Amino acid sequence: MSDTDRLVKKLEETIRNANTIMFKRGRSILTGLEISTSQFNALLSLVEFGPLTMGELCKHLFTACSTATDLADRMEKVGLVERKRDAKDRRVVRMHILPKGEEIVKAVIEERQKFLGDVLREYTEQEHLDLLNILEVLANRMEQVDKKHPIDVLKA
Amino acid sequence: MSDTDRLVKKLEETIRNANTIMFKRGRSILTGLEISTSQFNALLSLVEFGPLTMGELCKHLFTACSTATDLADRMEKVGLVERKRDAKDRRVVRMHILPKGEEIVKAVIEERQKFLGDVLREYTEQEHLDLLNILEVLANRMEQVDKKHPIDVLKA
Repeated sequence: MSDTDRLVKKLEETIRNANTIMFKRGRSILTGLEISTSQFNALLSLVEFGPLTMGELCKHLFTACSTATDLADRMEKVGLVERKRDAKDRRVVRMHILPKGEEIVKAVIEERQKFLGDVLREYTEQEHLDLLNILEVLANRMEQVDKKHPIDVLKA
Repeated sequence: MSDTDRLVKKLEETIRNANTIMFKRGRSILTGLEISTSQFNALLSLVEFGPLTMGELCKHLFTACSTATDLADRMEKVGLVERKRDAKDRRVVRMHILPKGEEIVKAVIEERQKFLGDVLREYTEQEHLDLLNILEVLANRMEQVDKKHPIDVLKA
């Protein structure tokens, strides 16, 4: 195995482990709320991208559109989201996040921030800056490569 | 807002964005396979922690145990996992991952590695090492803080 292969493996593992912990910490505050991971991911997509049609939502979640429709029905029933017709084009229906859904996303993000705050307390100021800098570069390059080699979502 | 607060916010956002891209790339190869995100997370837990009882699985997934049981039933039906009695204590039943499930996790991880390989091609060798180093420190400190402040899973 080449050095680059080893680095790639290690990097994937490190990002995955860091994310498992973050996911777990954020998810923990939803315990007892009966919000599934798919529901939470749908809420997060709505916060990040604004109101979405069902076609857009199933692409974001990489799930079959029938599954996404079931998901949306359940979320609408418990008041997390609401379907609304587009004011200009009445044929288009979009899912909008409701205050209850927004509060859930906010609470999870705050919990993740609280946890990261605890982690960062172990860092020196210089380490803070290095970390932020290197992660921003990584995220930017990931975005660039992601755009350059788009996933063929049409096969969905 | 203090500098530390700003850094924590930025850091959480950066990790979340990087992860959304990684999730999307890895998830894309499951398109058409009808594997839900919860099913994939369950498979990943089984790969990372070995065979799990239902009680352990629902804790790992931060989901109600009734939800985890439905999930396990569906996964067993399509041959991703298998329930087996413990040879020493017949009262204990554990979920084991089957080859089909292992292949799915392997394929997703390989796709994530392929994507990260493309991203790293934009880096110099020194940048590679800096990145790996800083991420390992971050992951270690996250693990430490996670262990020091365990989540009270009993409230589940």
